Amino acid sequence: MAGNTIGQLFRVTTFGESHGVALGCIIDGVPPGIPLTEADLQHDLDRRRPGTSRYTTQRREPDQVKILSGVFEGVTTGTSIGLLIENTDQRSQDYSAIKDVFRPGHADYTYEQKYGLRDYRGGGRSSARETAMRVAAGAIAKKYLELKHGIRVRGYLAQIGEVACELKDWDQVEQNPFFCPDPDKLEALDELMRTLKKEGDSIGAKVSVMAENVPVGLGEPVFDRLDADLAHALMSINAVKGVEIGDGFAVIGQRGSQHRDEIRADGFQSNHAGGILGGISSGQPILAHLAMKATSSITVPGKTINRFGEEVEMITKGRHDPCVGIRAVPIAEAMMAIVLMDHLLRQRAQNADVHTDIPRW
Amino acid sequence: MAGNTIGQLFRVTTFGESHGVALGCIIDGVPPGIPLTEADLQHDLDRRRPGTSRYTTQRREPDQVKILSGVFEGVTTGTSIGLLIENTDQRSQDYSAIKDVFRPGHADYTYEQKYGLRDYRGGGRSSARETAMRVAAGAIAKKYLELKHGIRVRGYLAQIGEVACELKDWDQVEQNPFFCPDPDKLEALDELMRTLKKEGDSIGAKVSVMAENVPVGLGEPVFDRLDADLAHALMSINAVKGVEIGDGFAVIGQRGSQHRDEIRADGFQSNHAGGILGGISSGQPILAHLAMKATSSITVPGKTINRFGEEVEMITKGRHDPCVGIRAVPIAEAMMAIVLMDHLLRQRAQNADVHTDIPRW
Amino acid sequence: MAGNTIGQLFRVTTFGESHGVALGCIIDGVPPGIPLTEADLQHDLDRRRPGTSRYTTQRREPDQVKILSGVFEGVTTGTSIGLLIENTDQRSQDYSAIKDVFRPGHADYTYEQKYGLRDYRGGGRSSARETAMRVAAGAIAKKYLELKHGIRVRGYLAQIGEVACELKDWDQVEQNPFFCPDPDKLEALDELMRTLKKEGDSIGAKVSVMAENVPVGLGEPVFDRLDADLAHALMSINAVKGVEIGDGFAVIGQRGSQHRDEIRADGFQSNHAGGILGGISSGQPILAHLAMKATSSITVPGKTINRFGEEVEMITKGRHDPCVGIRAVPIAEAMMAIVLMDHLLRQRAQNADVHTDIPRW
Amino acid sequence: MAGNTIGQLFRVTTFGESHGVALGCIIDGVPPGIPLTEADLQHDLDRRRPGTSRYTTQRREPDQVKILSGVFEGVTTGTSIGLLIENTDQRSQDYSAIKDVFRPGHADYTYEQKYGLRDYRGGGRSSARETAMRVAAGAIAKKYLELKHGIRVRGYLAQIGEVACELKDWDQVEQNPFFCPDPDKLEALDELMRTLKKEGDSIGAKVSVMAENVPVGLGEPVFDRLDADLAHALMSINAVKGVEIGDGFAVIGQRGSQHRDEIRADGFQSNHAGGILGGISSGQPILAHLAMKATSSITVPGKTINRFGEEVEMITKGRHDPCVGIRAVPIAEAMMAIVLMDHLLRQRAQNADVHTDIPRW
Repeated sequence: MAGNTIGQLFRVTTFGESHGVALGCIIDGVPPGIPLTEADLQHDLDRRRPGTSRYTTQRREPDQVKILSGVFEGVTTGTSIGLLIENTDQRSQDYSAIKDVFRPGHADYTYEQKYGLRDYRGGGRSSARETAMRVAAGAIAKKYLELKHGIRVRGYLAQIGEVACELKDWDQVEQNPFFCPDPDKLEALDELMRTLKKEGDSIGAKVSVMAENVPVGLGEPVFDRLDADLAHALMSINAVKGVEIGDGFAVIGQRGSQHRDEIRADGFQSNHAGGILGGISSGQPILAHLAMKATSSITVPGKTINRFGEEVEMITKGRHDPCVGIRAVPIAEAMMAIVLMDHLLRQRAQNADVHTDIPRW
Repeated sequence: MAGNTIGQLFRVTTFGESHGVALGCIIDGVPPGIPLTEADLQHDLDRRRPGTSRYTTQRREPDQVKILSGVFEGVTTGTSIGLLIENTDQRSQDYSAIKDVFRPGHADYTYEQKYGLRDYRGGGRSSARETAMRVAAGAIAKKYLELKHGIRVRGYLAQIGEVACELKDWDQVEQNPFFCPDPDKLEALDELMRTLKKEGDSIGAKVSVMAENVPVGLGEPVFDRLDADLAHALMSINAVKGVEIGDGFAVIGQRGSQHRDEIRADGFQSNHAGGILGGISSGQPILAHLAMKATSSITVPGKTINRFGEEVEMITKGRHDPCVGIRAVPIAEAMMAIVLMDHLLRQRAQNADVHTDIPRW
Repeated sequence: MAGNTIGQLFRVTTFGESHGVALGCIIDGVPPGIPLTEADLQHDLDRRRPGTSRYTTQRREPDQVKILSGVFEGVTTGTSIGLLIENTDQRSQDYSAIKDVFRPGHADYTYEQKYGLRDYRGGGRSSARETAMRVAAGAIAKKYLELKHGIRVRGYLAQIGEVACELKDWDQVEQNPFFCPDPDKLEALDELMRTLKKEGDSIGAKVSVMAENVPVGLGEPVFDRLDADLAHALMSINAVKGVEIGDGFAVIGQRGSQHRDEIRADGFQSNHAGGILGGISSGQPILAHLAMKATSSITVPGKTINRFGEEVEMITKGRHDPCVGIRAVPIAEAMMAIVLMDHLLRQRAQNADVHTDIPRW
Repeated sequence: MAGNTIGQLFRVTTFGESHGVALGCIIDGVPPGIPLTEADLQHDLDRRRPGTSRYTTQRREPDQVKILSGVFEGVTTGTSIGLLIENTDQRSQDYSAIKDVFRPGHADYTYEQKYGLRDYRGGGRSSARETAMRVAAGAIAKKYLELKHGIRVRGYLAQIGEVACELKDWDQVEQNPFFCPDPDKLEALDELMRTLKKEGDSIGAKVSVMAENVPVGLGEPVFDRLDADLAHALMSINAVKGVEIGDGFAVIGQRGSQHRDEIRADGFQSNHAGGILGGISSGQPILAHLAMKATSSITVPGKTINRFGEEVEMITKGRHDPCVGIRAVPIAEAMMAIVLMDHLLRQRAQNADVHTDIPRW
């Protein structure tokens, strides 16, 4: 039932299958009076789009988004915004081989058991193609956050396989096909991609996202903590198997005296917490990390069964990314922006009148 | 606004501060006709309760739960269940020192900035004492899941600091104060606790939770995936900074040919996915891991500011756990049970009529 | 914020302005395996469509709906269904005169004050054109309800001005342009319409909706009662100012001994309650009535102000219905069907296992 | 499932049966810093309480409410507020006769069919006793609305049976046991009550509620219109069978030229709309009317069946109101206040930045 919506006040609902007629979404709760054009959305869609480099799938989708409602004379009206992307490069014939077989590591088996049938063309609704609409919706959130609050949400590729990238230079991120902030690792990444391509295999990745200039106070206590909602949003991205806030799993080995971020008159002295204390933003940068599994759409043969319970061996042909983590960078940014936008509106609803003289930095 | 509720169909709403009059919750959506007594809830509450061993806080709360509604002649009626635990051992005087100071690593600063004031007694609403009601609500979910579907949700302590515990024996878990499944590590854990106690410091931990016998098909595509909802629920537990499903962050280094769980006529051949494919349960055991930070309530002095912006050094006296991860085991079980219960009802709503002949194991 | 969605488990979210690019909606929670084509939706859209008779606005919209997702090989897949209707006959030039003026009785003034701006073309989002998507979504609910449960939802025009129509013959309803079940009133209605047209005025109406064969047990106690959710859904239709269940306002004058529906071995002996007891369906026909105000888009001059606070007199030109109640019949049916569908899924979620031997009729 | 909550941002969840241990509720989303004591809630609880006059049930419940959380040092903290009323006068023995019988006009039959069992003591969850918690929650909303926005929500009894009361004097409302604003009708009401008492019968009523000084702009377009949410909230009160906004069912006979509220420089010239245009508050008083059926708990014998399908004749002994509409006045006020509070927070979330120079009155 009804799992295609995220957010309470800034609410995004999507539809569309990989090889259906179109993808679309409705964004509800956008404040009125914000300048918005299709070009604002297209930028991030182009960053996410397949076919932009030789490291991602060669499927070519112009992914041209149309705004169908909610914008009038160039500004948002406060009513629901409808977005549409028509599917143009569908090549359904590629997929007929998998109609009766459950690709190992895919959602084929679980969809079929859940619903009794599935749209097998390109993974149908389980395809990461759905994330195009998240990116479009996230672009609206990003625009609002930056325009009205100076909040900036940015992500980068932190690791592929054994190749870890340090956050050396944000400017590098947009200048290479890996979203890699570490120019010294580009060669190693390139080599890894070539090897995988040759072997017909794929690999996992780590993606990091940061939001800067987030005001203190976002996040609701108990269940709808900011970190809990971020974990939900980020784990909902295809292939994500782990989410960390701040130091994440490294906290297991940390002492309390080491982990706690001390405060001085000039602000916090460290950011082990990743910008969230008690589920509420502290004013420090919010930092999250995702672990993304290797795609199982590979040409290395794998054992599985078909719908009749017979054992078969299969390879997944078609056009697939050797590392889906790369294109996940703009998706992760979008999800973080959506969550922040939602909590900004929630905070405003209940605590509009709150004022303190306590220092914030 | 309104962040004190979790779940869509099995819905848990809590209230209560650490040192207020009482804690309580309302559980909405419990199917009718389920035998339920206070003793069913008390068992897990006792497992979570402080004061049960020398390794956890010596604060003594009998944590006696009362069922106020929704149960008639020993069975659930299908109407909302009200639960109450009165606070009996409050000792508010212990906490007056922190009234104007923001303990580093605590939610003091963020609550005060968000709301303009805070109940400073024992952390108020930000205290992990709130989790008592989660455990009580989770006990209802656990009972239903086991009684009606044979689903069993169990957790254990997987690591404290550098001491990692293997899942050697489930029976061990309830026989030592650490929820440790590895009898060979009890001594090392005991020694670590003594050291921390002496130093007045604390340490992080890793907790693992597993659900067995979960039917295939739970979880909604796109945003309300089973893994996304688990990540939300588990990250909402106090002190959690990371959540993994299945292999978690280890997937970064895995090839696609290695990660995918192959299928044969007798079922899946491995469980790297942790029982969830495309956000939907596969019928395999569901496995999640949490990273819990060390509590910042320690007697090692730390630098911070007070509400007037002045720098101060403080220690947190009072009765605190050196490792909050230990008592988190029943809490993590409760949260997983709540999510599974919710998705069981959701699955039933939409897909009650679905039947397939595809093998399930 | 986020008011464009209705339903909990069967969830409908709409977008689109009267004179925007397109109208659309997303329907989430449709069970899988239901045969569905665009023709299934088009039938009710055609019933609602303007331009079908001389009594409704002469604006011509083919209102051709497209299914963009969620249907594969002719059956629903269980994933979200995207629908689209492109606006083709927009004639924006008709509306430039009202750009700076607030038509009395319209939402012009309230939208402008709420959002600081408004899409003034044809009423923008406040136009009843939005209800086209409700009708399309409702057609899916109607199909499911009838196909799987034999539930039939039908409406009729009960009154226009002083001309009251009795429910003499359901078959008549689809055979005249008024949805009138009383052939003896057609002439009077026709004459009333002519008079209004001549005078440039409009008139109110009463619409009735009935659902037959609804199983006992739908509706949740306390807030989400079936009658409360029906009241919400029906009152959300443009121009509705009153909602009744069963005897409605007539109950004020009824004694308890008169109102209560007595039960005998062969079932209920009357249906004053309109099929709902304690917020839960009783198995009897569910009956609701709506009061719809006269449209304020008339050519009788009216006093109002413009955005600068100046008094002006205005008439609303354009193509408008003299009685919006007529076209509201399929809309009211759609809303009742959506609510019943939602509650059918909710009932199934919690009470799937309930069985009684108590008679139901 | 989960029907015991109302509101999106100001969220009220209740529990408790007529003859259970206690009634309670959780109110989530209350802004921080609002002075609040138990006395603030008790005033309206006393107005609703049975036993306060000879016209209402003689059941005596002190209905003493306790605040269990969310208030610290006399002001709200922004966290969830838990409220409790213990049931003290239960007399369960009165009700054993109805254990196996379905009282005509009651929810006995529908509860039993829905859940397979029911708490038959005093109607269990279906009893209007649940509304005590609505009144307590509504008192918080009323306090906030008046304190922060000068909004005043008041109700009165508009009609019992054939005796209609005009709104002659608000001050009269609190000075007679009927909440009647028309001193000339007190005698007729008194006589009607005596007659009913003697006959063992009951009667319907009309209740009106008004909110004054509501700012323009509350209400969300399309589904969550202010009038739709009011209709939902008011129809969710036990025994309500009809809801009107403004002129309500009288609009059926009105011309458009008559119904529309013209505007001049000094504001609206009439209020047929009841303060809501296009689902959004216009700044005029908001006016709603409820039709409440006669209670079916009467001593006039009625025909029904028992759980074995056998026909029986029954009378309902016990202590019951001859007209439940009287005590519904504070309940209706509470529900309107809850809805307004919710929409005030929603409006603030999305449109906090909106400013216009358009006149508001």
